Amino acid sequence: MHNYKITVMYDGSRYKGWQSQKSTDDTIEGKIEGVLKKLTGREVAVIGSGRTDAGVHAMGQVANFHIKDSCSKEEIMDNLNQYLPEDITVTAIEKVDERFHSRFSCTRKVYRYRIHTSTIKDVFQRKYVYNYTEGLDVDKMKQAAKKLEGTHDFTSFCGNKHFKKTPERTVFGIVITQLEHEIQIDYYGEGFLQNMVRIMTGTLIEVGQGKKTPEDMETILEAKDRAKAGYTAPPQGLCLLRVEYESGSIK
Amino acid sequence: MHNYKITVMYDGSRYKGWQSQKSTDDTIEGKIEGVLKKLTGREVAVIGSGRTDAGVHAMGQVANFHIKDSCSKEEIMDNLNQYLPEDITVTAIEKVDERFHSRFSCTRKVYRYRIHTSTIKDVFQRKYVYNYTEGLDVDKMKQAAKKLEGTHDFTSFCGNKHFKKTPERTVFGIVITQLEHEIQIDYYGEGFLQNMVRIMTGTLIEVGQGKKTPEDMETILEAKDRAKAGYTAPPQGLCLLRVEYESGSIK
Repeated sequence: MHNYKITVMYDGSRYKGWQSQKSTDDTIEGKIEGVLKKLTGREVAVIGSGRTDAGVHAMGQVANFHIKDSCSKEEIMDNLNQYLPEDITVTAIEKVDERFHSRFSCTRKVYRYRIHTSTIKDVFQRKYVYNYTEGLDVDKMKQAAKKLEGTHDFTSFCGNKHFKKTPERTVFGIVITQLEHEIQIDYYGEGFLQNMVRIMTGTLIEVGQGKKTPEDMETILEAKDRAKAGYTAPPQGLCLLRVEYESGSIK
Repeated sequence: MHNYKITVMYDGSRYKGWQSQKSTDDTIEGKIEGVLKKLTGREVAVIGSGRTDAGVHAMGQVANFHIKDSCSKEEIMDNLNQYLPEDITVTAIEKVDERFHSRFSCTRKVYRYRIHTSTIKDVFQRKYVYNYTEGLDVDKMKQAAKKLEGTHDFTSFCGNKHFKKTPERTVFGIVITQLEHEIQIDYYGEGFLQNMVRIMTGTLIEVGQGKKTPEDMETILEAKDRAKAGYTAPPQGLCLLRVEYESGSIK
């Protein structure tokens, strides 16, 4: 068996996310599996580094899959890019160690949330930003973000009530950048719970609005109660920028 | 009567262009007229600085219209941005002299054509670039572009066989910039004939391919024959960046 690691860029606007329990036809994973099945004549299971929600985009999602056949990596990549829809592209392919697993081997993920703050909408970015024009106190948001960094039980920031595994996660850093018409929030973490980045964003926005304070973050974390955190920011502003693997690790 | 000048940004992907002879419903002009009619209760004729082809975008198209009613400019702009579809935005409004005419008063237009040259498609730019990955000789394209600058009879670069008015136009400059994965061609002119920018682009691409030479440009111009020039580059790569008016002139 050959193990291939691919990097995938997609516009998530019209998809039910990377993966869905119900259908594979309108998921990014499903589209990739469809092309690989045509290429190999067999079912190929594609393993993503993690699920992205419906409507969330990716510049550099990573996935891997095992193939018996002796296709070259160029052949696989060309085939994928020829038959995948126009909103999904494979930007890189690599043959990796059999033990490489895109989810388990991953050491860091970087997400960016983009808030468009001008009352003048940018039509070319409309599917990739969240329009919020009421004015936000970015300094307060930065103070609040600091409180979320580190290793915490993020139950209050998890969108899945039936989540069974450990709700502990490490957020290495949250970097907020104010541009002329945009606030960008970059999240660096080892991994994130379901909806976690969007709920952190909604909560930071509520801090920016003055509805919550930076100090509230501690109470929210301690409460382990989803209802204490802010709203779930809409998916279109979110993009999985990249997934990182330790260079010395299995690849 | 009050004369208003507006600046309009649009994603032209799903429109039949700025204006169409057949229908107004799927044109950008038609959408704007529709909102102004609802606002004023009257037919309002919107005059664009020029037509953009079906599928062509604009960062800064300019138009003007006359309204009897004493609406404030803020009211008009808010109303337009509230009711226009998500792919059209009014980015500025100004009350101007009654004699201002967005087409006749215009002194310069700037168009950009974007050619994406990487075999890795950028899904987020897919509707705003033309993918051409075969390799182009940009130096030769620059030499050819120089030959098109100046005042010429551009009949060979006009997509409308039945064009009745003067085919003479002045191209102030054509600036070609090579980026890592993109070639940008910026066209500065007093105005352009129908499809002219797209035909110049297709012709420059053929020079880049080696099918035509920079010297051929002179022969093509002299021939006054559309068949001598290159193909019409597809619309989605083209964007009307801005329309300029002399600061001292009527506004």
